[in-house]
Amino acid sequence: MSVTVLGTVAFDTIKTPGGFRHLILGGSAVHFSMAARLFTKVSLVACIGNDFPAKYIRFLKGKGVDISSICEMNGPTFHWTGEYKSDFNRAITIDTKLGVLAEFAPQVSPKVAKSDFIFLANVDPQIQSYFLSKIKRPKIVALDSMNYWIDNKKKALLKVLKKADIYCVNEQEARDLTGECNLIRAAKFLLKLGPKIILIKKGEYGAMLYSNDYIFSMPAYPVENVIDPTGAGDSFAGGFMGYLSKSKSLNRGNLVNAILYGTVIASFNVEGFGVESTSSLSLERVRKRIVEFKRIISL
Amino acid sequence: MSVTVLGTVAFDTIKTPGGFRHLILGGSAVHFSMAARLFTKVSLVACIGNDFPAKYIRFLKGKGVDISSICEMNGPTFHWTGEYKSDFNRAITIDTKLGVLAEFAPQVSPKVAKSDFIFLANVDPQIQSYFLSKIKRPKIVALDSMNYWIDNKKKALLKVLKKADIYCVNEQEARDLTGECNLIRAAKFLLKLGPKIILIKKGEYGAMLYSNDYIFSMPAYPVENVIDPTGAGDSFAGGFMGYLSKSKSLNRGNLVNAILYGTVIASFNVEGFGVESTSSLSLERVRKRIVEFKRIISL
Repeated sequence: MSVTVLGTVAFDTIKTPGGFRHLILGGSAVHFSMAARLFTKVSLVACIGNDFPAKYIRFLKGKGVDISSICEMNGPTFHWTGEYKSDFNRAITIDTKLGVLAEFAPQVSPKVAKSDFIFLANVDPQIQSYFLSKIKRPKIVALDSMNYWIDNKKKALLKVLKKADIYCVNEQEARDLTGECNLIRAAKFLLKLGPKIILIKKGEYGAMLYSNDYIFSMPAYPVENVIDPTGAGDSFAGGFMGYLSKSKSLNRGNLVNAILYGTVIASFNVEGFGVESTSSLSLERVRKRIVEFKRIISL
Repeated sequence: MSVTVLGTVAFDTIKTPGGFRHLILGGSAVHFSMAARLFTKVSLVACIGNDFPAKYIRFLKGKGVDISSICEMNGPTFHWTGEYKSDFNRAITIDTKLGVLAEFAPQVSPKVAKSDFIFLANVDPQIQSYFLSKIKRPKIVALDSMNYWIDNKKKALLKVLKKADIYCVNEQEARDLTGECNLIRAAKFLLKLGPKIILIKKGEYGAMLYSNDYIFSMPAYPVENVIDPTGAGDSFAGGFMGYLSKSKSLNRGNLVNAILYGTVIASFNVEGFGVESTSSLSLERVRKRIVEFKRIISL
């Protein structure tokens, strides 16, 4: 089944110990798509400004992404400028120019309205809610968010969270949203807010899955040459949802495999700037690294 | 085979969100012993002041620890005062009173000199070196250290590191000692300093083992009620070394099991103040939790 992602298409300007890139293609929905496309057809719902280069559109199209729900608006494209020092776990935001994202109202074509697998990537939770209300009978809804919305639109976030099956959240956000420093308590709290599955992303420390029935914990693939972690969480989610869209149920085995794929695709993501690494990735290379990763973590 | 630990016996005064304890029994060698005793006979080499209560000596003896190499010196026992806020990963040192530890010269009895399994817990690396020079033919030497010695006695630490088989180090210390933020690069660097095995402790994020032949990574057991993490690294090391002392070789299977035992014993450690939890632990309870833990991490 195909996957639909609502999120951002952005310009990123990024400085890391590995180098510098100006105005490269980024955004949550783009990173997600580069991972999920390895498994299935991806429809990308987002907005761009009228400064957005045709070459980036061609690039997405060339990668098989359905871009018919990307709407072009008058004004500049969302532009994030950030830096990572030697601690790649912490992004330092230098500047955020929302541009047309401030006025974004997602297009929901009849085709998109019939989507089965929905990933609501990081945008205003009111936009996530509006978008979700237009989807007829989604099979699986997964949700991501960001500290900014926890701090500024908590009510709206809690509302959309009620309708999500899977909450994909990083550990600091889980702590901030629940007020619980302990991740198990935080996850238990989050389970009461609606989702059946809490997927806590811990960056270089891996991921944990919590449900009412079991806990699953996995370290990350150890990457030696980290270049740029931007989008790692979104490509993790893309691999995770992409794999699930091909699975028959949300049983433990499928969820564990989905996390394996997400983890390994994210490990490729951080080895290049922007989508440099994930955009040239094949499922074959992913599977090869999964074999290697399994050797690293097997008891 | 028996295990000998060189380290500290201390008074700890600890405040955490879980409560407060004044002058409880602590110290690296004590925490190590409470774990390692589950597998084998442990000889504890350390110093205490003449203020050290007889009841603590009786307690250690009662737990089967060989205390004949604990020397009583004139002056106060080493006393650490610390606090943990909601982030249990970071100990805040309020006060350190070295007391007799400042003049410590370990006793090496003929029996201790014939030890096979040596754990050099956190003390001055010059003392670790001196002690090791008195051991005739150790089979396995494992070494722990602390930021303080990396900052203040790096040369002495590098000297003793050359003679260690296993370096048991927490992730921040690995970064500080090598100047490498990336843990794989840090581990590769450390491998060049002497030890054949680098065991990086990551607290609530688990542990990683690096050798020239393979990498192994494991998350931590997820503990819901953390009370006091003091000594978790030492009880991890105690479980790890205790298990190894009963193993025939340092092959991957044995090392992985040793990490499993260390991880699970450390998870008990953090559920109580000081040695409250580990001192009443049985191997049966440890094994029960290992079964549960394996369910959590199995693919």
